[in-house]
Order: sequence, then structure tokens, then C-alpha cells
Amino acid sequence: MRESHCSVAMAASVLGDAWTILIVRELFLGNHRFEDIQAQTGASSTTVSARLKHLIHEGIVQRAQYNDNPPRSEFRLTRKGAELWPVIVTIMQWGDRWLRGRSQAPLQIEHGTCGHTEGYKLVCRHCGDAPDVSETRPVLSRSLDHERASRKRAFERSIGRRA
Amino acid sequence: MRESHCSVAMAASVLGDAWTILIVRELFLGNHRFEDIQAQTGASSTTVSARLKHLIHEGIVQRAQYNDNPPRSEFRLTRKGAELWPVIVTIMQWGDRWLRGRSQAPLQIEHGTCGHTEGYKLVCRHCGDAPDVSETRPVLSRSLDHERASRKRAFERSIGRRA
Repeated sequence: MRESHCSVAMAASVLGDAWTILIVRELFLGNHRFEDIQAQTGASSTTVSARLKHLIHEGIVQRAQYNDNPPRSEFRLTRKGAELWPVIVTIMQWGDRWLRGRSQAPLQIEHGTCGHTEGYKLVCRHCGDAPDVSETRPVLSRSLDHERASRKRAFERSIGRRA
Repeated sequence: MRESHCSVAMAASVLGDAWTILIVRELFLGNHRFEDIQAQTGASSTTVSARLKHLIHEGIVQRAQYNDNPPRSEFRLTRKGAELWPVIVTIMQWGDRWLRGRSQAPLQIEHGTCGHTEGYKLVCRHCGDAPDVSETRPVLSRSLDHERASRKRAFERSIGRRA
């Protein structure tokens, strides 16, 4: 999946696991120690360990030693990891809206600069409007277009249909 | 994981699988038929079938019959599904920036209303600025705060440490 031209496919294969997303959430919430992450995600130590190793391998998390003797490490988001913030916020807001019923959102994210907690919206970098999906149109590069056409032909061959 | 007060946890358990994200991507790209989804995701028919069933169960996708005889269905995002658009876009943009090296983004999403393809950014609903994560602060509801404190105590008991 990782080899694809599509960035969604590549990113999904890096992130694509609920435990990984919960670990990234904990790091954003300021929980940087292994046992705190384990406590709050409810994952086994094996799971937390494997996912942290994966996140370090991907350059999303780095290990920082905070005590020499005995050696103790904590885990911090790199710049690459910190830029997952919009992904976590959009996932959270979707969950708030569609999975909670009417109960109050359990976590709000204050924008320190203005002091408000109204949440965040995705807007066009050019005009600043928040588009509805129906107002948007995917524009594929030639290489992605080619990749998708090849995949379609290969699939049709594999099921014995003429391309 | 689903029972948690945290919307990220609930949403991650609904979405939390790279195949699910790729299927949602295909629906946004306008691929609505089972075999086209299978061809473009590279997933087995068992995988596509299980994930579509899950997405229908969660109210994210609906089945629409487009032919009566023989009966043929296609799959469409519901409103709940369409509102995953910011999640997919932020994942894609993060992948474009951090996983692609210098190659051109393979897919751009034109904002039809203004006609530009500069991409999208997450801004504060109140002041309209795009915050850096360092400028934001999580504000937990009392119930989430309580849930997290309980989890921490339960975890400490489970590993034999005094709370």
C-alpha cells in the first residue's frame, strides 16, 4: 500500500490503526511517558511498544531521555508528528458531531491566541471559504491518472474481463 | 475502545483501519461500484465487503440499487460520511508534505467556487487564524477529566503501584 502514488494511501498505511491514532492523541494531550500512554489508551504494553517503535521509525515521534540513572525516556512528537494536529482535530470534531449524540463535547481545544474554544474548520487556502464537498473536484496528476488506469486494467485482467 | 468519553477514541475505532480510509477515499473520488473500489484499493473482495458492511452499519455509507435486473448496487457516502471530507483532506495533505519527498502532489482538490487548487487549512472558527499546535490548549470536560483520572488509578492498581 505504501508504494502507491496516492498520499492518502501512504499516510493511511503509516497511521492506519486506531492504537496509533490514540497514542498520537496522548502525545498531543501532554502525556509523554510510556505508562501514562498505556494507562490512557488501554493498550497492552506490547501494543504501545510496537506502535511507538513504528512511530519513531516513521519520524513522527522521538525518544528523549529525561533521567540518566536509572535511564528513563519519554516520547515527544517531532515536527512531522506535530503537523498531524489537523488530522487529530478533524477526527475529534467528526466524532463529537456524529458519534456522541447530544452530550457535550468532552474535550475542547482552546486557541490560545484568541482565547476561544469554538473549534476549527477547514478552509480553502486561496479564498478562505469552508467548502462543502459537493463544491470540490479532484484533479489528478498524469502519474496518478496513469497509475489508476493501470490498476483498473490489471484488475479486469485478473478477473478475466476484457479491458 | 468505543465506550470511551473521548471522540478521537470513538472515531478511531470506527475508521481505524487503512482499508476503511482507502474505501472512503474512493467514494470521494467518485468510485461507487464494488469492483472499482476493489481495483483501486488493491484489497481483496472479502476485505472490501467487510469494510463496506462496517461502513454501512456505522451509517457512513449507504447502498443504492442502480439496476433492477440483474440487481446491482453502488455505494454512496451519507451526510455523516461526506463530513469525513476534512479528515481525508488533512490526511492527504500531511502525506503530500511529509511522505512524498519533492515530487508533485498527485492529487489536488479544486475548490469549485473559487476555482483554485492551493489546498485547505484548518483555522479557528472564532478568529479565523490557522493555529500552531503550540498555541492551543486542551480543555477537558469534568467527565473526561474524571474518566482519565480513573483510568490512571486503575492502571496503577493493575501494576501494583499505590495511586
